[in-house]
Amino acid sequence: MISRQYLVDQIKQKKSFLCVGLDTDVEKIPEFLKAYPDPIFEFNKRIIDATRDLCISYKPNAAFYEKHGVSGLQSLIATWKYLPADCLNIIDAKRGDMGNTSGMYAKAFFDESAAGMSFDAITLSPYMGHDAVSPYLEYKDKWVIILALTSSAGSKDFQYLTTEHGFLYEAVIQKANTWANADRIMYVVGATKSTEFTNIRKYAPDNFLLVPGVGAQGGSLADVCHYGMNKDCGLIVNASRSIIYASNGQDFAEAARAEALKIQQEMQAELEKAGII
Amino acid sequence: MISRQYLVDQIKQKKSFLCVGLDTDVEKIPEFLKAYPDPIFEFNKRIIDATRDLCISYKPNAAFYEKHGVSGLQSLIATWKYLPADCLNIIDAKRGDMGNTSGMYAKAFFDESAAGMSFDAITLSPYMGHDAVSPYLEYKDKWVIILALTSSAGSKDFQYLTTEHGFLYEAVIQKANTWANADRIMYVVGATKSTEFTNIRKYAPDNFLLVPGVGAQGGSLADVCHYGMNKDCGLIVNASRSIIYASNGQDFAEAARAEALKIQQEMQAELEKAGII
Repeated sequence: MISRQYLVDQIKQKKSFLCVGLDTDVEKIPEFLKAYPDPIFEFNKRIIDATRDLCISYKPNAAFYEKHGVSGLQSLIATWKYLPADCLNIIDAKRGDMGNTSGMYAKAFFDESAAGMSFDAITLSPYMGHDAVSPYLEYKDKWVIILALTSSAGSKDFQYLTTEHGFLYEAVIQKANTWANADRIMYVVGATKSTEFTNIRKYAPDNFLLVPGVGAQGGSLADVCHYGMNKDCGLIVNASRSIIYASNGQDFAEAARAEALKIQQEMQAELEKAGII
Repeated sequence: MISRQYLVDQIKQKKSFLCVGLDTDVEKIPEFLKAYPDPIFEFNKRIIDATRDLCISYKPNAAFYEKHGVSGLQSLIATWKYLPADCLNIIDAKRGDMGNTSGMYAKAFFDESAAGMSFDAITLSPYMGHDAVSPYLEYKDKWVIILALTSSAGSKDFQYLTTEHGFLYEAVIQKANTWANADRIMYVVGATKSTEFTNIRKYAPDNFLLVPGVGAQGGSLADVCHYGMNKDCGLIVNASRSIIYASNGQDFAEAARAEALKIQQEMQAELEKAGII
């Protein structure tokens, strides 16, 4: 189990709060890998081998595997089995359904005896309220990561609506805080809105925030740290495409490592600046 | 392709607006089916055979299949292949992610060449806004069914927040109406809130509404019709457990048919009362 304290310790030890997003698209991986029986797993395996000392988390995006049906699911299961035990292994699935159904999804992703996988954490959509979250919280050694403020253009459609509890994304955080504490819940906060971190930290001072959108999606790591870091770091910053597709040649794993190292070094500087290490 | 007009014609012809929810739980199916190589598919096949003339739609719930990993996905694909072409075949997946990722999910469920399935419609969560929906709308012969007001207890957490555009669920409908019209978008509206249908019909006079929660979840069909029906019917009412688990003996398919027939007859009476047939 990856407890909050273990995660903080890993961040200090690895001097990194990087999550490598395994959004593995078979159309973007190096051609030579296609000779292997499971090219997606082969790609992920080499990315993991090349980056595991530089990151504290991996995050396969379920859609990229589901797209390939049975073989995609087999690649996902093989990838899960290969993920390092010292990392927070997140399935980015953004599920959100009523209680009975959420219980089934929780089994799929948290109970190895069901579908062959047991991730440490899952991303969830809050629209259906506590039903959509509570069945996952019954797994006492697992995390839920709830969408609050996302980084794509569509986030403006609803997340910034003004409600009786502030913006919708603020209402989500305030309500979800009543379901479990910062040892069990993280929030997704899009990095293109760095100044909003101040706002979010009012309601979620201790929670870890999973931050997509640094790198290919355009956010600034310095801004994220300036506004979003807390005394335990409290940030997991994801980069996917900028790392995993740094090269599409024979050297893709080395190129991925070089890119991850660059980010890790920036993160180390931020952790030092904040006095965390 | 199931166009809006075709769906209306099917409703008139079958005198039914019933959707049979294939929430197939291997722990609840008759014991004797477990001797078959794919018990879940075998169950679904017999339920479909017993009900296809009484309903206009089937809706497998993705979670129930994902729970079983590779074999569950194989059951889902086999079920999709067996679904009748004259029915609106919905995958109840409640996905909702940024554009790039939504495009992958759309392939998984809409493009047979990707994962072996091509459903007519998918349920989607609106939290991430238009990104979460637009990639599915690129499939011109497919429907999206967006969560508006759900029927479980958690719906109160956010869907009833008051925003500058009314309740959140009303804001969702008003915004989603700008993405596509009633030929492409349906909304999920929970049947335990019948009086809210009046409200929803203000914003979605022509859209079909997918109504879960009649039967096991406790909604009243008469109320749903009184408040929610439009001149084309405009309703697809789902029943899952009350039909598929009507018996767990050798007679489960006959019992499912009897239950579906009872609902179909109630629906016929409502359609006659409304002058639609």
